[in-house]
Amino acid sequence: MIALAMTDSTLAQRLLDGDRRALARAISLVEDDRPEGWELVKEVYPHTGKAAVIGFTGPPGVGKSTLIGALTKARREAGRTVGVLSIDPSSPFTQGALLGDRIRLSEHFLDQGVFIRSMANRGALGGLSEAALQAALLLDAAGREDVFVETVGVGQAEIDIIDHADTIVLVLMPGSGDSIQALKAGVMEIPDVIVINKADHPLTDTMVREIRSVLSLANLDRSPEEAAKRWRVPILKTEATQGTGIEELVERLDEHREHILAAGQLEERRRRNLHNEVLAIATARMRRRLEEELSEDAEFKRLLEEVVKRRLDPASAATMLLERGV
Amino acid sequence: MIALAMTDSTLAQRLLDGDRRALARAISLVEDDRPEGWELVKEVYPHTGKAAVIGFTGPPGVGKSTLIGALTKARREAGRTVGVLSIDPSSPFTQGALLGDRIRLSEHFLDQGVFIRSMANRGALGGLSEAALQAALLLDAAGREDVFVETVGVGQAEIDIIDHADTIVLVLMPGSGDSIQALKAGVMEIPDVIVINKADHPLTDTMVREIRSVLSLANLDRSPEEAAKRWRVPILKTEATQGTGIEELVERLDEHREHILAAGQLEERRRRNLHNEVLAIATARMRRRLEEELSEDAEFKRLLEEVVKRRLDPASAATMLLERGV
Repeated sequence: MIALAMTDSTLAQRLLDGDRRALARAISLVEDDRPEGWELVKEVYPHTGKAAVIGFTGPPGVGKSTLIGALTKARREAGRTVGVLSIDPSSPFTQGALLGDRIRLSEHFLDQGVFIRSMANRGALGGLSEAALQAALLLDAAGREDVFVETVGVGQAEIDIIDHADTIVLVLMPGSGDSIQALKAGVMEIPDVIVINKADHPLTDTMVREIRSVLSLANLDRSPEEAAKRWRVPILKTEATQGTGIEELVERLDEHREHILAAGQLEERRRRNLHNEVLAIATARMRRRLEEELSEDAEFKRLLEEVVKRRLDPASAATMLLERGV
Repeated sequence: MIALAMTDSTLAQRLLDGDRRALARAISLVEDDRPEGWELVKEVYPHTGKAAVIGFTGPPGVGKSTLIGALTKARREAGRTVGVLSIDPSSPFTQGALLGDRIRLSEHFLDQGVFIRSMANRGALGGLSEAALQAALLLDAAGREDVFVETVGVGQAEIDIIDHADTIVLVLMPGSGDSIQALKAGVMEIPDVIVINKADHPLTDTMVREIRSVLSLANLDRSPEEAAKRWRVPILKTEATQGTGIEELVERLDEHREHILAAGQLEERRRRNLHNEVLAIATARMRRRLEEELSEDAEFKRLLEEVVKRRLDPASAATMLLERGV
């Protein structure tokens, strides 16, 4: 018991000192949902809040990993340390994509100033999101100055994962018609920065105009004062494989950080995100507890059979489960 | 009390008789989360399970509503009654889209055999999903032979909403590159039927080939026996505004129904979906209860302040809330 506590405390200290192996071990503990992982986050949490956390979202195939690779290079050249957290979706198909991502980031594998980690979805997005947020805190505590969180997908659940980022970057490419439609319809929230990667495509400028018109529509319902104070979402063109446009992206990311710091928005954002995070963790745990308790529960099996036979409706079955006090 | 019970029972009877006003009232009760609504679903639930529930998903702007309108026309001509449930996303922008949808479906407004209803997202997708599933049960109980559920979006949460459908149709259009990438990467699950609407576009056939190659990849990991027994996902080309391809779509939908009936998959699917539905309702209620209890909770405010000040980590705050027994 004492030995364990000592080990943990050593792990925490090594993590705070920026030790990469300690960091890898710590994230594994969190990913495997081990109590020591949660203890560790608890211990190092007072040392978090310093990293600039940037979330990247967008459909698969637009080149998010390559872009993050190029950005990592730029940040390293400026002498900053980088952590990359890549959230992989749940399908068996993605093994290929994953391998590809790793290759794209491979030039940084030997650099001690870069820490790259993929986290796989083990079923419920709620659970992965929970672990990913903790992993981001660990990177922050380990002194990574820039933390890049990458998630694939354009739906609400995917965006929730990077919702605790200080800056949200939507990455598209020419042909990302669905995402532009989703922005237009208000299904997808307006991000802080929009990047059109693979911009060596003839339709890139048409796409920039289309996005610009969506963004101006989004501003219509604001007062002039509000609009003036508001961050103007930049639309950037990049070719990440060539490094083209990365310098400007770095500048815009820095500007966004200055903007949210000056406007007091960073604190406000973090307060809201931490509020949501506490609720999300509590809900995910309640759901997991419910599923565990029910997996071998004879009464639940009986209730479910009644539901299948159309003798008991799903909501009443849920009520009976909750009233039973699970 | 007796009067209320009588009213409810009358409403249930009128609903089972297929009365449109009773149906509208019942769905409103469920949408507003009124206890009478849940009571009503409970009462009529034994009369459900007969409708063919077909879910339509896909990015905004591909013409899902027009397609459903054309399909509704075909089903009415075959003498079947139809219910349409359209799930709208949460943004203020969507007022326009909604109005557009209504116009596209307007030719059916006076037809007693067609019932059309939009449901708005009131914040948490969990909550809306819960209400939408109940509304689908009400349409089923009211004797609608075909129930079409439409949802906008291509993420996991959006697909969860139509997950209780017997048949899932993914609607795309030429230019839906993001969705194809999502299918390819396995981020989006393979639907039962894929429709490429607005097929009068020169790139339609390229798109069909692309989707076909994604689908054949998805079959690679199956044994020849499994693959032979398996439903072959048809890729259909339609121009819903012209009614082109609708007849074939109707045939494929009927074939899919026959397939799942013959293979015993319908029962299996419904059992799995009902299982998930009970859990989803229970979780949504737990989360709502938690949020309500915490909204005015001084202790939660204090805990949150500690989290913001980095003195208490989010997971520990969640644990403290749960241990307190909320």
